[in-house]
Amino acid sequence: MQLDHSNLPRFARGCGVLGTGGGGDTYATLLGALQAVEDHGPVAVIDLDDMPDDALVMPCGGVGAPTVSLEKLGGITEGVELRAAVERITGTPVAALMSSEIGGSNGVLPVAWAAHCGLPVVDADGMGRAFPEIPQVTMELAGVSPIPAVMVDERGNSVVTSPINGAWAERLARSIAVDFGGAVSSADYLMTAEVARTATVRGSISRALAIGAALESPDPLAGLVEELDAVELVTGKVTDVLRETVGGFARGSALVEGVGRDSGRLLRLEIQNENLVAMEDGLVRASAPDLITVLDSATADAVSTELLAYGQRVTVVAFACDPVWRTPAGLALAGPRTFGYDFDFVPVEQL
Amino acid sequence: MQLDHSNLPRFARGCGVLGTGGGGDTYATLLGALQAVEDHGPVAVIDLDDMPDDALVMPCGGVGAPTVSLEKLGGITEGVELRAAVERITGTPVAALMSSEIGGSNGVLPVAWAAHCGLPVVDADGMGRAFPEIPQVTMELAGVSPIPAVMVDERGNSVVTSPINGAWAERLARSIAVDFGGAVSSADYLMTAEVARTATVRGSISRALAIGAALESPDPLAGLVEELDAVELVTGKVTDVLRETVGGFARGSALVEGVGRDSGRLLRLEIQNENLVAMEDGLVRASAPDLITVLDSATADAVSTELLAYGQRVTVVAFACDPVWRTPAGLALAGPRTFGYDFDFVPVEQL
Repeated sequence: MQLDHSNLPRFARGCGVLGTGGGGDTYATLLGALQAVEDHGPVAVIDLDDMPDDALVMPCGGVGAPTVSLEKLGGITEGVELRAAVERITGTPVAALMSSEIGGSNGVLPVAWAAHCGLPVVDADGMGRAFPEIPQVTMELAGVSPIPAVMVDERGNSVVTSPINGAWAERLARSIAVDFGGAVSSADYLMTAEVARTATVRGSISRALAIGAALESPDPLAGLVEELDAVELVTGKVTDVLRETVGGFARGSALVEGVGRDSGRLLRLEIQNENLVAMEDGLVRASAPDLITVLDSATADAVSTELLAYGQRVTVVAFACDPVWRTPAGLALAGPRTFGYDFDFVPVEQL
Repeated sequence: MQLDHSNLPRFARGCGVLGTGGGGDTYATLLGALQAVEDHGPVAVIDLDDMPDDALVMPCGGVGAPTVSLEKLGGITEGVELRAAVERITGTPVAALMSSEIGGSNGVLPVAWAAHCGLPVVDADGMGRAFPEIPQVTMELAGVSPIPAVMVDERGNSVVTSPINGAWAERLARSIAVDFGGAVSSADYLMTAEVARTATVRGSISRALAIGAALESPDPLAGLVEELDAVELVTGKVTDVLRETVGGFARGSALVEGVGRDSGRLLRLEIQNENLVAMEDGLVRASAPDLITVLDSATADAVSTELLAYGQRVTVVAFACDPVWRTPAGLALAGPRTFGYDFDFVPVEQL
């Protein structure tokens, strides 16, 4: 399997859906990835089972507020700097890149970086979606160290942190992202292919491609709901958006007022980069770590949280996260309480 | 020459005077240094001329707000971590430590670290005083790179930044200091002894010892004024202190109301960690890069800015900085305009 001009747009649409509102809008990054494969050739997608045990996998992506990434472009070649820094520090060649999060722009960006590096990407990621914080990855659950965490910016600055745990990795990286203007390119949780086989969400690139293909159905929304086994929360109109870029995150909320058969209903979305919680009449309809995605009602394309705007006609869907996130350890790392919500997680299919 | 229990208190008093209000209060650090020389033996003070050309000199100290360092103790053994990180990154043994700034606690701390490392300190520093920001060192003026800038905290976290210039070194280090609770231990502007001979303020430890000795005169204030060739700005009482810890700095101002022969006069001090400007009747009486030090009227001991308090009887003195700071390049890096004041520097002896 490879990613090239023929399937990158489909892949990016799939990443958008898996972004659950976050991970950054894919538009500019897709353009960068298309240019990268035109300049450097297609990017091979390899399975972790086909790699030598000791091959070094470099999880990577952008860290910061997607509201910033929307305007602070660039970053397409920073993967080359990240790889060089990782190889200098570890003394080991990077065998393949991996998206730390498959969701949104962060699913697509490592493909562009891999093209520039002349390296493959692995068919896996660290979330199966997008999450706001760095340690919210399956590698953290598997006990992989975030050290060394490498960050580079577009000016030539670089920083290597050796945090004592994932929470410190997040704290330091967030400050550095803010220093660099609200977004930074990052690689961390380095691991061998052997470790990655059980420490990642497998098949993420294949899944994004399958979701993108479903969006090409005659009825894209129906095709997508079937592909995802998703629950439709509401179809309506965005009537209010509160959003601020603070502390290296895009935080806020949005209201979707039902139209047509959903007339009279009102769904509230709580946002920290990603859509974290969907509430209706004071009740939770869906919450992290399950995925909540806002779709354009006409095209079923995902609308990222930083692009939500008054008047958009949307359908909000929710679907199940990777099973690892529903374990006690997964919920302790990325459940509703970790985001400050005072309720326990209930799977979306039971709500 | 060596530093041990017999002269460390004298040395620390001298560092206090050279701190121009900043660099951190010396009390706790002196205790740490005394314990360090008791545990590990005296620290040799060596001249750069007596070192091999290629010997590695490690400038180091604490970065952050002195208001924080007053309560966030520790840091006495972090020099061992800094040295290990520097040697790991550079592949070169550290030959000697150097105070990045001789002023205040930061003059004393590297001596404690050197005792723990079993290394000497060089009779030099990077300022001849204390300044608030990292690149405000003579090494920056001499074109030494701040890379790699190493920071460690007391928890075991470490960060290595490779900033493109001194301003970025400051920006990143300040954020990291804030992340670590407002203070961090740092080493940067690494250089060989050959470079250090012309890139530092020479004889700083000797000078601090001479100042400390002057404070042991029968009339310590008179002895100090003679030793420093200082100008007495006012003798009076602290009547107002405005101080806040913000962005990794202690910022504020203080008023000193004259008493006795200075009755009716009012001196205002502007503070960013250090005393930066002394104003009276709307006129500048002294300003950075010259040194402004608040002294206890009875003992002539320096009072650091974080310990200024209503009612203290003080004498404020000002004295000339190292000549390198009065050059155009020196003033561009540490003159009044770099701190946001809209006036040109005039040497204190002309004011």
